[in-house]
Amino acid sequence: MSRRLRLNAFTMNVVSHIVQGQWTRPDTRQRDYTSLEPWVELAKLLEKGRFDAIFFADVIGAYDVYNGNRDAAVRRAVQFPVNDPSALIPALGLVTEHLGLAFTLSILQEHPFSFARRASTLDHYTRGRVGWNIVTSYLENAANNLGYRGLPLHDTRYDRGDEYLDVVYKLWEGSWEDDAVLADTERGVYADPAKVHEIDHRGEYYDVAGPHLSEPSPQRTPVLFQAGSSERGREFAARHAEATFISARNIRGARANVDDLHRRLVLAGRRPDDLLVFQGLTVITAATEGEARRKEREVQEHLSDEGTFAVVSGWLGTDLSAVDPDAPVGDLRTNAQQGIVKSLAEAAPDKTWTFRDLIFSIANRRIVGTPEHVADELERWHVDGGIDGVNLTYTTTPGSFEDFIDGVVPVLQDRGVVQREYHEGTFREKLFDGRVGPRLADTHPGTAYRRKAVVA
Amino acid sequence: MSRRLRLNAFTMNVVSHIVQGQWTRPDTRQRDYTSLEPWVELAKLLEKGRFDAIFFADVIGAYDVYNGNRDAAVRRAVQFPVNDPSALIPALGLVTEHLGLAFTLSILQEHPFSFARRASTLDHYTRGRVGWNIVTSYLENAANNLGYRGLPLHDTRYDRGDEYLDVVYKLWEGSWEDDAVLADTERGVYADPAKVHEIDHRGEYYDVAGPHLSEPSPQRTPVLFQAGSSERGREFAARHAEATFISARNIRGARANVDDLHRRLVLAGRRPDDLLVFQGLTVITAATEGEARRKEREVQEHLSDEGTFAVVSGWLGTDLSAVDPDAPVGDLRTNAQQGIVKSLAEAAPDKTWTFRDLIFSIANRRIVGTPEHVADELERWHVDGGIDGVNLTYTTTPGSFEDFIDGVVPVLQDRGVVQREYHEGTFREKLFDGRVGPRLADTHPGTAYRRKAVVA
Repeated sequence: MSRRLRLNAFTMNVVSHIVQGQWTRPDTRQRDYTSLEPWVELAKLLEKGRFDAIFFADVIGAYDVYNGNRDAAVRRAVQFPVNDPSALIPALGLVTEHLGLAFTLSILQEHPFSFARRASTLDHYTRGRVGWNIVTSYLENAANNLGYRGLPLHDTRYDRGDEYLDVVYKLWEGSWEDDAVLADTERGVYADPAKVHEIDHRGEYYDVAGPHLSEPSPQRTPVLFQAGSSERGREFAARHAEATFISARNIRGARANVDDLHRRLVLAGRRPDDLLVFQGLTVITAATEGEARRKEREVQEHLSDEGTFAVVSGWLGTDLSAVDPDAPVGDLRTNAQQGIVKSLAEAAPDKTWTFRDLIFSIANRRIVGTPEHVADELERWHVDGGIDGVNLTYTTTPGSFEDFIDGVVPVLQDRGVVQREYHEGTFREKLFDGRVGPRLADTHPGTAYRRKAVVA
Repeated sequence: MSRRLRLNAFTMNVVSHIVQGQWTRPDTRQRDYTSLEPWVELAKLLEKGRFDAIFFADVIGAYDVYNGNRDAAVRRAVQFPVNDPSALIPALGLVTEHLGLAFTLSILQEHPFSFARRASTLDHYTRGRVGWNIVTSYLENAANNLGYRGLPLHDTRYDRGDEYLDVVYKLWEGSWEDDAVLADTERGVYADPAKVHEIDHRGEYYDVAGPHLSEPSPQRTPVLFQAGSSERGREFAARHAEATFISARNIRGARANVDDLHRRLVLAGRRPDDLLVFQGLTVITAATEGEARRKEREVQEHLSDEGTFAVVSGWLGTDLSAVDPDAPVGDLRTNAQQGIVKSLAEAAPDKTWTFRDLIFSIANRRIVGTPEHVADELERWHVDGGIDGVNLTYTTTPGSFEDFIDGVVPVLQDRGVVQREYHEGTFREKLFDGRVGPRLADTHPGTAYRRKAVVA
């Protein structure tokens, strides 16, 4: 755990992200996601609230596990339609000065050579405020959209991911030496050809000549996010990530997860504090407990069962359509249970829950109450759970982030838990409070591709 | 030829685009290309000057034909470094209201499924102002960067291009029916699953399941640009393009080119006016002839021989390093001439030229003089050459576009040749003065993938 709690706004370039059905409410602008304006307003608000970053999730296929088809996802706008999140970065960079701008891109989706250039371009335009969430795609439809003819096996995708990262590290860190750009107007020399290198990568999945087409951007490598929860996923995160997302069910689970990640980091030759751990949480807050509970009921009233079951089916890779939402979790006979549902039910914190409660709790871990109560809970996650930050899910937007910034942020600032001003510099420097420079920490494997200055 | 002359600002996300060496001048901001600000200012200026579009060229590799290596290109910043042009679109969309925003993307560079989503996202955010310049890449290095192990043969690239377009047409035009999006908050139904279709494309180069991830954007298919000059390239343009670039040496050549394109359009089942032809030109203008000539000398003084020879070598695919810049074009013995250089020299309009003059004339067809003189010349290209628009190259930026907008545009507006106000609607409607709706004309082959409404 580090001293301060970091705040990440978790969103997606969609109508409906995590908490399904809320797009139907009159007080949301989620249906207006194809306009830049709501995004611009959100980014300005988050910067006012001293959030570390706005973070865009992404998928490159439709959720089609529930009922074995995508109908529920299409009908309830469950992360579908889904527009390209990276297209928001330049516009949000233009209207903000400090906010970190992180987006997701699957390594199945774009060739590492052209992606490396795109990321460098975005890092230039935002003056070093870009983060990249590395994903390997879990939806079968994504692979079929991209010509992979059936999703590559889980571990094979991670092997491909390791090579993808080797390629982009070589381009970002190794291709251009620090003093390659001269911009010498007297001699008419922009860059020194002897200091701009091919990478000549030849691997199992990619052959890439180089050199990198972009000159070094402020961060060179964007801040690297990753969210793998499997064994192989955690190993990947411990090797590559500078920030990771966890979805622990409770504070004890968070602590176990954090400890496990720290252990893996040390095994990978990195320091425990080289990786920041963000817990996903939804906050519903209002001036009084009663008002907060009323807001929660409003969320529940608009909640889409079908949408929630569809998104969780996609995450688990298990069709939950045979599960009766109204049955109590103790009553496994009433449902055509598969192993995963049974084990979820057995782990449920409250045996009086219905399956609806259970599935919703997977989609959305909630803190509901006054700003003081929310701040207390977040401090417990921070101190006892050992997390470095919160990945804050909205229920409605606009709405959730305003409530949090107006109510909870000032309380956390008064307690010295949340920053009052941004640290100077790039996203990486801000996120690590200047403990790390604008570029990858020396312990990061990406630095292996840096060219050492030759001392005569 | 259509009634009005369209104006396209030709640029690239680089230090140095067409007229090499000018980046060294104190009066240019070309070295500041990694900041958004100069681009934002340029876009606002062009909209003030009633330009139809800002157009971004692109390459996805280094120019390495000259001397058999990329040293000259790196040294003189010849389209290298080169950042991603599409990353500029959202920011420029945010600060303009009418300007068309066109960028280049090679079909070798990105999978059609993810590109289709990115283009739709950009078309949403710009409210239908996106254009796409379809290229197939001519630089060997581009293919080696993207894992193609040696550039595919010219005609094979165009075959791949035809299939790439079939895929994106299916996604843009065919996947979502016009009334698929309901956004019905009462029933909680965002889209009708029966009206969102897989494309299930299985081809020689691509297998793509679908459905398209983006709901229909204002234009669905962005305005399609293309610039092929070979037989196969012109055939491709006649089939797919709505606007094309030519680089005729003179007005007679432009007319021949335009006539040839119109003939090919008719053979492809389209109308001659379905394709707008833009001629590439550089204008150097000032209040007096003498001042314009002084500006031209200033350009010549800063011109980089090495940079110019490097870029033209890349275009021709012929290493011009053995050519003596100071030799007269008549003196072929002094040069290690290959066929292409000999034929260029024989076609030179002025036999007293040096090879420097010849190579520079290939890079840059110039009109120099007072606004009235420039307007006269442009009217000749328009009326006698039959072109629909000009693709205007800058010598310096800021500089060239300001001079043109302050001097030449008002003269052309007074003559009724250039628009005073933008047509309403999308880029396509503006470009075609409302002759075409927001979406592809019915004669365009992309419309074959539209789903016909079933009338009961």
